[in-house]
Amino acid sequence: MFETVTTALDWLGIVAFVITGALVASRKEMDIVGFALLGTATGIGGGTIRDVLLGLPVFWVHQPAYLVTCVLVSAIVFFTAHVPQSRYRMVLWLDAIGLALFAVSGAEKASLAGATGIVAVAMGVITATFGGIIRDLLGGEIPVILSREIYVSAALAGAAAFVVLTMLGVPRDLGIGAGFAIALVIRAAALQRGWSLPRYRPRPGLPHDRR
Amino acid sequence: MFETVTTALDWLGIVAFVITGALVASRKEMDIVGFALLGTATGIGGGTIRDVLLGLPVFWVHQPAYLVTCVLVSAIVFFTAHVPQSRYRMVLWLDAIGLALFAVSGAEKASLAGATGIVAVAMGVITATFGGIIRDLLGGEIPVILSREIYVSAALAGAAAFVVLTMLGVPRDLGIGAGFAIALVIRAAALQRGWSLPRYRPRPGLPHDRR
Amino acid sequence: MFETVTTALDWLGIVAFVITGALVASRKEMDIVGFALLGTATGIGGGTIRDVLLGLPVFWVHQPAYLVTCVLVSAIVFFTAHVPQSRYRMVLWLDAIGLALFAVSGAEKASLAGATGIVAVAMGVITATFGGIIRDLLGGEIPVILSREIYVSAALAGAAAFVVLTMLGVPRDLGIGAGFAIALVIRAAALQRGWSLPRYRPRPGLPHDRR
Repeated sequence: MFETVTTALDWLGIVAFVITGALVASRKEMDIVGFALLGTATGIGGGTIRDVLLGLPVFWVHQPAYLVTCVLVSAIVFFTAHVPQSRYRMVLWLDAIGLALFAVSGAEKASLAGATGIVAVAMGVITATFGGIIRDLLGGEIPVILSREIYVSAALAGAAAFVVLTMLGVPRDLGIGAGFAIALVIRAAALQRGWSLPRYRPRPGLPHDRR
Repeated sequence: MFETVTTALDWLGIVAFVITGALVASRKEMDIVGFALLGTATGIGGGTIRDVLLGLPVFWVHQPAYLVTCVLVSAIVFFTAHVPQSRYRMVLWLDAIGLALFAVSGAEKASLAGATGIVAVAMGVITATFGGIIRDLLGGEIPVILSREIYVSAALAGAAAFVVLTMLGVPRDLGIGAGFAIALVIRAAALQRGWSLPRYRPRPGLPHDRR
Repeated sequence: MFETVTTALDWLGIVAFVITGALVASRKEMDIVGFALLGTATGIGGGTIRDVLLGLPVFWVHQPAYLVTCVLVSAIVFFTAHVPQSRYRMVLWLDAIGLALFAVSGAEKASLAGATGIVAVAMGVITATFGGIIRDLLGGEIPVILSREIYVSAALAGAAAFVVLTMLGVPRDLGIGAGFAIALVIRAAALQRGWSLPRYRPRPGLPHDRR
C-alpha cells in the first residue's frame, strides 16, 4: 500500500512536469519531437539526478513505461496547448504541484535508500527543482528558481516537514500528505498573493557594484 | 569485427563533435585550453551522460586515448579554424554527422547493456543530442535543439530504425548502416532543403500569451 | 596526516566556492534559500561531477557535514554581503582560490581511485571548473570560462604539476603544495596583470562569419 502511495505521487509529479515542459515547447513553437524531448527531460530530470547522486539505478532505465508516458503526455499537449487561456499561468501551477509531489517523494526515496535526514531533505529539494531548471535551460527561459516569489523554499519546507514528522514517529502516509500539503500551500500562496521571503538588498548609502 | 564497427563509429562521431565544439570556441575567440575544454566536452558529453544513466563505467575514464584525441583535434582546429569559408555551416554539417553516428552507437551500446527497445532508442537520442546541448550551453550559443529544421527527430529516426531492424533479425552491421544513413539523410535534407516537421502554432483567433 | 591535508584542501575549496555562489545570489537579490541553493551547488558541484564520472559514491551523500557547512556559509554571506567594497572582485579572487585547491584535490582523488595521469589531470580540471560553470548557468551570468584572462589553463597547470611531480617520486604533500601554488599564482597573475594566452583570432583579410 505504502509503496503504491509514493509511486502514485511520483507518477502524478512526472505528468505535471511533463506538461510544463511541453507548454514551454509550445511557447518556442517546437515540433512534436521537440515537445517530447523537453517534456520528458522536465518530467524525469529531477528524479534522474536524485538517483545518480544516491548511486541507485536510474528509475526509468528499466521501466520503459515512464518514457512512454512522457512521450504520450507531450503529444497530447502538442495537440491541445491552444486550449488553456494562459499557458504561462498553467506552467506555474502545474510546476507548483510537481514541486510539492517531488519534494516529498524525493526525500522519501532518499531516506528509504539510507540517507540521513539532512541529505534526504536535500534530495527532496533537488528532485523538486532540477526538472524545472533543466526545462528552463533547454528552453532558453529565465530559470524559475530566480523568480521573486517563494519557490525553492516551498520544496524545502515540504521535504523537511516529511522528514521531521517521520522521525517523530508519525506514520509515513501522514507525513507524505503533510509534506505535500505544506509545500503546495506555500507555493500556491506565493503565486496567488505574491508571498516572498526577505530578499538580499544592497544597503542604501553603501557603495556596491552590480556589474 | 562487430565490436570494431561500433567503436569506429564512436571515434568518428567524437572527432566530428570535437571539431564543432572547437569551432564554437573559435567564434568566441577563446585560447587553446578553452578550445580543448569546449571540444572535449562536446565530443564526450553525450556518451558520458549515456554511460552514467545506464550505470556503466564512463567510457573514457579508463581509456585515456579518448581524452588525448579530443585535445589533439581541438589543437588542430585552433591553428586551422580560419581555413573554412563558413565556420557556422561547417559546425552544422559536422554536427549532423556526429548526430547520425551517435544515434546508432548510443542505441547499440544501450541494447548491448540489456536495455529494452524504447530505452535503447532514448539512449541513442540522448547520446546524439547532449554533446551539442553542452556545447551550446557552455559556449553561450542558442541551443541547436531549438533550431527550426528537423534535428532531434533525425536522431530518433536513426536510433529507432536500428533498434527495429535488429529486433526483426536484420544483421547488426546492416542495422547500424541503415540507422546511420537514415539519420544523416534526414538531417542533411533538413539543412539543405529546410525540411521541418509541423511546428506547434498558437491557433489564430484564440487569445494566448507568449510572455 | 596526508588524508587530512587533502580533506582540508577540499573543505577550504568548498567554502571559497560557496561564498562565490552566495555572492552571485546577492547580485540577483535572491532570498536566503536561494543563497543556500546557489552557494551549495557551486561548492559541491565540481566534486559531485568528479565522483559520478569516477563511479565513486558522491562525497557529500554520506557526510551531511558538507551540506550543513554550505548552508551555514551561504547564510553568513546573506547577512554580510554588503560589507565588501566590490563583490565582483571578491567573487573572482575566491573563485581563484577554490580553483587552485580543487585542481589539486580533484587530481589527487582521481589518482587515488586508480585513474591514469591524463584522466587525473582531467578530473582536476573538471572539479576546479564545473562548480563555477554551474554557478554561472543557474545564476544567469556570463560563464567565467569564457573570460579573456587565463582560467581553465591555471587549473590545468596545477593539476598537471601535481600529477607529474608525484609520478617523479616527489612526496605527495610537496606535490600538492606545488600544484596549488602554481595554479593560484597563474590565475592571480591573470587577474592582477591581465595575463592571457594567445586567443584564436580570425585572420585579417580572410572572409569569415561570426553569426
